[in-house]
Parts: sequence; C-alpha cells; structure tokens
Amino acid sequence: MSVEVVKVGLLGLGTVGGGVIKTIHSQQEKLAARLGKRIEIVKALVRDAEKERAVQMGRTVLTTDFDEVLHSGVDIVVEVMGGVEPAYDYVRASIEKGCHVVTANKELLAKRGAELVELANRHQVHLAYEASVAGGIPILGVLRQFLRTNDITGIRGILNGTTNFILTKMEAEQLSYQEVLREAQELGYAEADPRSDVEGFDAMYKLYILAQLVYGESLPLAEVSRKGIADLTCGQIRIASELGYRIKLIAQANQTGDGIHLSVEPTALPLDHPLAQIQDSYNAVQLSGNIVGDLLFTGRGAGEMPTASAVVEDLAYLLTQPFTPHPVWKEREGAAKELSGGREQSLCYVEGAGPAATPDRVLQFLRASGVEVHKLKVQFDLGGVLRAGLITSGLHEEHTDLLRSDFGLQVRCFPLLHASE
Amino acid sequence: MSVEVVKVGLLGLGTVGGGVIKTIHSQQEKLAARLGKRIEIVKALVRDAEKERAVQMGRTVLTTDFDEVLHSGVDIVVEVMGGVEPAYDYVRASIEKGCHVVTANKELLAKRGAELVELANRHQVHLAYEASVAGGIPILGVLRQFLRTNDITGIRGILNGTTNFILTKMEAEQLSYQEVLREAQELGYAEADPRSDVEGFDAMYKLYILAQLVYGESLPLAEVSRKGIADLTCGQIRIASELGYRIKLIAQANQTGDGIHLSVEPTALPLDHPLAQIQDSYNAVQLSGNIVGDLLFTGRGAGEMPTASAVVEDLAYLLTQPFTPHPVWKEREGAAKELSGGREQSLCYVEGAGPAATPDRVLQFLRASGVEVHKLKVQFDLGGVLRAGLITSGLHEEHTDLLRSDFGLQVRCFPLLHASE
Repeated sequence: MSVEVVKVGLLGLGTVGGGVIKTIHSQQEKLAARLGKRIEIVKALVRDAEKERAVQMGRTVLTTDFDEVLHSGVDIVVEVMGGVEPAYDYVRASIEKGCHVVTANKELLAKRGAELVELANRHQVHLAYEASVAGGIPILGVLRQFLRTNDITGIRGILNGTTNFILTKMEAEQLSYQEVLREAQELGYAEADPRSDVEGFDAMYKLYILAQLVYGESLPLAEVSRKGIADLTCGQIRIASELGYRIKLIAQANQTGDGIHLSVEPTALPLDHPLAQIQDSYNAVQLSGNIVGDLLFTGRGAGEMPTASAVVEDLAYLLTQPFTPHPVWKEREGAAKELSGGREQSLCYVEGAGPAATPDRVLQFLRASGVEVHKLKVQFDLGGVLRAGLITSGLHEEHTDLLRSDFGLQVRCFPLLHASE
Repeated sequence: MSVEVVKVGLLGLGTVGGGVIKTIHSQQEKLAARLGKRIEIVKALVRDAEKERAVQMGRTVLTTDFDEVLHSGVDIVVEVMGGVEPAYDYVRASIEKGCHVVTANKELLAKRGAELVELANRHQVHLAYEASVAGGIPILGVLRQFLRTNDITGIRGILNGTTNFILTKMEAEQLSYQEVLREAQELGYAEADPRSDVEGFDAMYKLYILAQLVYGESLPLAEVSRKGIADLTCGQIRIASELGYRIKLIAQANQTGDGIHLSVEPTALPLDHPLAQIQDSYNAVQLSGNIVGDLLFTGRGAGEMPTASAVVEDLAYLLTQPFTPHPVWKEREGAAKELSGGREQSLCYVEGAGPAATPDRVLQFLRASGVEVHKLKVQFDLGGVLRAGLITSGLHEEHTDLLRSDFGLQVRCFPLLHASE
C-alpha cells in the first residue's frame, strides 16, 4: 500500500534544523499514524553543501540554491535559518507558490509579520510559528485556541534563555557578567555576537508576537521600552538578593485605558514570585485572564530539541487543520504612558565613594524630596566605597540625576513586581 | 440585523453553573465578535426552582425537569451538576438528540467516558471536557492539539486543590489535618463530605482522563494505586520539611515496557522540585516529552471562575471547529509492576515509645537488612517518644512490617521524587 508523502523543504540546517530532521526521523511512525501521511524532507537549503554535519543527509537533498527548494514540489517550507534577509524573500516566495510555511524566526515575524500574515491569508496557506516564542512551550496555540473568551489583562514572561542562564549564574556563583558570558559562549548557550540576547532584542521580538496574538495589535518595535542586562553587576544582584529580590529580564505587556505598554527590562522580583523560580535557560510565560485568573507555562525556551519539537508539532497540526484565515496583525503608535509614572516601587542600587556618599545623606535627600524608602541594605568595602540597595516609592529620574551629580553616585534602578503581579 | 443565536441548556446551577452564566454575560460581546453568534442559556435544570440564587435568571429559564431542557431546541448542553447519576442519563440523551455536550464532570468521564466518547462519535457531536481536569489550565487541549508528535514519557500533577490547600496549611501553620479540614470547610474550600477529595478519588478521576488522552488507554479505576491524605500528621510533615522535603498529593502516570502505572499518593518532593512550589489551592501538571523535555502548567484548578472559564472556552472552541471523531477510549487491565520495586528511595517516618524504639536499633536493623539510610532526622519529646524521618533506598514492606511488630513503631513511608523527576 502506498502512503501519501508530504514533501517538506527545509531552509537552514543549523542547530534547530538538525533537531527538526532528528525529530521527523525518530517520530516518523507516530506522525504517520496521526497524519496518515509520511513526511519527507526533499530539499534542505544550506550555505555550504560540503560542510561536515551531525545529521546525515543524502547529497541530492542539500542545496545552496533556494530556487531548487522552491521547484522541488514541496508542500511545506520550514524556515529555521533566522534573520530577516534573505529569510523574508524565501518565505514570501514560498507562500506565493502556495506552500504552507512553518517558521521559528521571531525577528522576521516582529519586523515583517504583518505583511506575511496578510500574504498567507491571500494565498490561503498556513503560516505557523509556535517555535518563534518560548521554544517548546505551546503558548501561541493556547492563546489562539483556548484563551479567546478571556480578556487577557497582562502578560509577563522570561522569554530569553541565554540571559536567564547568565543572571542565574551571576547570582549563584557571584561572578561578573563578562565571566559568565564567556562561559555561556564556550558552552554554546550564547552566540559569539550576543547582542540580540543580552540587549533584549530577542525577548522584544517575542513579546511583539505575543502582543499581536493577545491584543490583535502591537506597538511598533521602536516604541517598546527595552533595556538589556549587559550593564548589570554582581554587586547589584547580590544586594537585591539581600533585600529578598531576584533580578530577571522580564518582558511585559499590559493594556490600560490609554493603550498598550510593552517593555523588556531587568526587573526585581520577590523570591516568592512564580517567575523568580524560573532558573537557568528555562522560559516561562505568565498570563492573567479576567475569568481564568493567573496561568503560568514553563519549559525549555530554546535549544535544538525544544524548538524542533515546536516546529514539528506545528507541521503536524497544520496538516490536520483546514485553512482558516489568520487574524490580521496591526500596529498602532502611541504607547501608554509609563506604567510606573514614579508612583510604583523600585529597587534602586547606588555605589560611590565621594564625601556625600553616605547612607544618612542619601536618605535625608530622598525623604526631603518626597521619596519613600521602605527598605535599605548598606555595605561599605575596605576602600570606603558605599554600596546600597533601597526599595523606594515615588523615585523619579530627577532624583536619580541628582544622586549622580550631587552625591557622586552610580545609580541603577529596577522596577519591582510584587508576588501577586 | 439579526444575529444567529446558539441555544444552550445548562444542567446544574451550583458554583460552576453560576460562574458559567456570569462569564457568558460578561464576555458576551467578545464571544459574539469571535463566533458571529450570540450564546443564550434557554433552560437551566435545577433541583429547586424556588431557591434564592446569586445569579438572576428568568423564571421561565429554570426548570426541574430534564425533558424540558431537551425539548427546548438547545444546540449545546452544558453539564455541571456532577456525579454519575442522573448526569449520565442526561448526557446520553443529549448526545442522542444531536446536541454537543460540554461537561466538567470528571467522575462521569472516568466511569462512563468510553461509552460517551463512542456515542458522541456515532452521533457526530462534540464532547468537550477541558473543565474536568485542572480547572482553568487548558491541559487537555494542549495534549490533544499541540503535543501529539512527542512521546509523553511521564505525567505528574497536583490535580486536587482542596488537598493541596490542606497540606499547605498543615505545613505553614503546623496544624493537624482535622483542624485545617474544618477551616477549609468553613471557607467553602472543602465539601461537607470531603472523601472524594481527601481520599484521592477526585485526583484519580482526573489522572484517568489524562491517561486516556496521552496514552489512548487507561487502567480500570480499580487498578489505580490510590492513597489519600486523611492519615497524615503534622509531625510527618514537619520532619519531612526538616529533611528538605515537602509532602504533596501527587498523581502520576508512567508508561514502561510492561504497561502503564497510575498512582495518586502523598509523595515527598525536594523543595526545589517544581511541583513543591505549587501551594494553596493551585493545580499544576508536569509533562515530560521525549522531544520537548519537561513542561509545567500551573493555574487555579478549581473554583467558580477558573472552571467556568474552561467551560466557556470549550463552548467557544467547539462552535468554531468542524466535528472530528474523538479518539476512542480504551481500558486495558494489568498495571505495570510497582515502579519502585523496593529499589527507589522513600521518606520513612517512624514514631513510638517502646524499649526498642531507639535510632540506633532501628538503624542497625535496617542496615543489617540491606536497606540504605541516606539521611536521618531524630526528635524525642519530653515523654520519651521517638519521632524520626529517614531517607532510605531498598526499603520493602517486610521491613516496615518488622518495624511495626518488633520495634513497636508506627510507620508511614512516602515515595520520593528527585528534583529532576
């Protein structure tokens, strides 16, 4: 009996591409039982067809020419090459040829998703991208299918495994950012050029995609407030810990009366906050629904197999679903005002050795300025350098500016979440 | 412009039924936008039509006669009355009349699910039951739609909110089981007859449903190994905590070479185990997939609104999906052998005041019997009563029997999970 074959073209044969091939091989029987079809990778686009690879592929499968993929009769194109160009051109051409597309490419979606969604709808093909956000956690599917009656009032997540690994290590082993980054690079957890991860771009792209699914719109990327972790010090993390907080790179979307607010930034969480427990390279997404309450989804957010799992689950899902138009993506300018507005609490770290750098003078100044200080932790080292952490309310930029200019202090403030947020 | 109306019949107007009505009202606009249809509850079956209710319903909507519901032209029947009879007859009649059914009734599904699934397939109607397991956590949908390529090698969960609330309180406030149960009953967290919760039946029903979805089969309920929490003492919980463990009622399904093993029982978890962090009435489900790795889903597992959320999300989902046959439910007798087989670790609590009840003699006996003791915590009270907790490997029933008969000890052993399990 001949079994129908689904022909897949694979764009990119790096870590995730290799995982996709392994998964399709190891789960072939299960996939066939579910789909009644056999999945076959007929072409794989690579940069160098001669390179040694962990995954064995027939020489006729590998190609360096995208047109060869497109004209090999593929039904589905899986794009796991990353970056906007040339991925955008390839995905666009695949859709126009009537192929379904599965992609793990968050940057492509955040930058060109609106066009691609519209194009896929026009050509009535699936555009599936579960793997682009939070790796193996099926968060996009849940939002699209099972949380559509609820109003989602907030999303908070740890969406980047590399930075979470770095922050976990910095705290646990009291190492500097540079030391841990080097180790992460040696282990293959961080890229040679780590900017996309450590400056928060990667988490921002994922947050953008989540916002599109939850709110049906997002801010333009330029309006997302984004801070990375590259300037964090071991001293900041230690004093936060002594105050009962852990610093995480938190991506947040909140909808208020005057619009959406999207931010990615190092944030202080009390140790009993569910997201404070997410360590190493794990990812997590916390959702608040007006009916269901808080839900938390945790799993491996990156890496070969979790991401490959999401790609192949997407593949299987779209092969069993009739096409239905994808909700249109929109962008609307005009972010909501900063949520904090100076009234919220923050964890403020100060460091310096000048004559005015004493806890008494700092506290006196803050109180006279109307800033409440709820908690204070002070350290002096042998060289007379003050290091202090303060939990404050009502701290504005004008105050931190004065702490720098008049008190000779380095200042770094972190917004603060409460355990129930 | 007239909008199509979906007519819903509601069976049961207790806590969850009230939540369903509130949710349909508060989310009516969102539902209409999504479905292009208006949902209307045309009949609600109650035991007493005269009773005062928090939810206002027209007098013509309430009825005490199921036939009136069935003959009011309903498209969908929502069953939130609980129990097997008469719910089974009503659900059966509804399916036979061609109505889709949404139910939150885990006992009905665990006892008659196979028949109902088969009947629904025959009549080509949806049978949706997300609300029956883990309340608002969309775990069944995830398993059915987004984790079908992975082999699920294990499921572990905290599936009963009442017992988790009781265990959390017993540990945090060092109270006895009876004291906390009384408080939980006063707060409405536990029923007047708490047996279904505290003896593990409720968690077992949910585990049975999970096993059907994950493995396509389950053991008969009689073969599920089930222990409740009613015999746990504050002393056991305290000594576990001193050893670095927390006792939780864990439902587990594992598939091994020789079959499935299903169990619900108080289990000792190290404090850094993800399920040890799930406190109060929260539920959580941890899945291990061979490709995706570990995933953890956390949320409110019970209560008016989380359960209502799952019911209404199911309602909306089935109204936007074409009918596809539900995978058949099967039962297969012959559980896998106890996983532990005496080789696994357990936390063993002993208590007694006899002359042989000394740590030295107990240790000597265990070691002579080939039982390894990895950790020991001993307390004596003023009356000379020994209370000890031991982390052991290789402890069999023959050993605990001898500890009881020859050493005059009360003995309670808990299987132990490791942080990475």
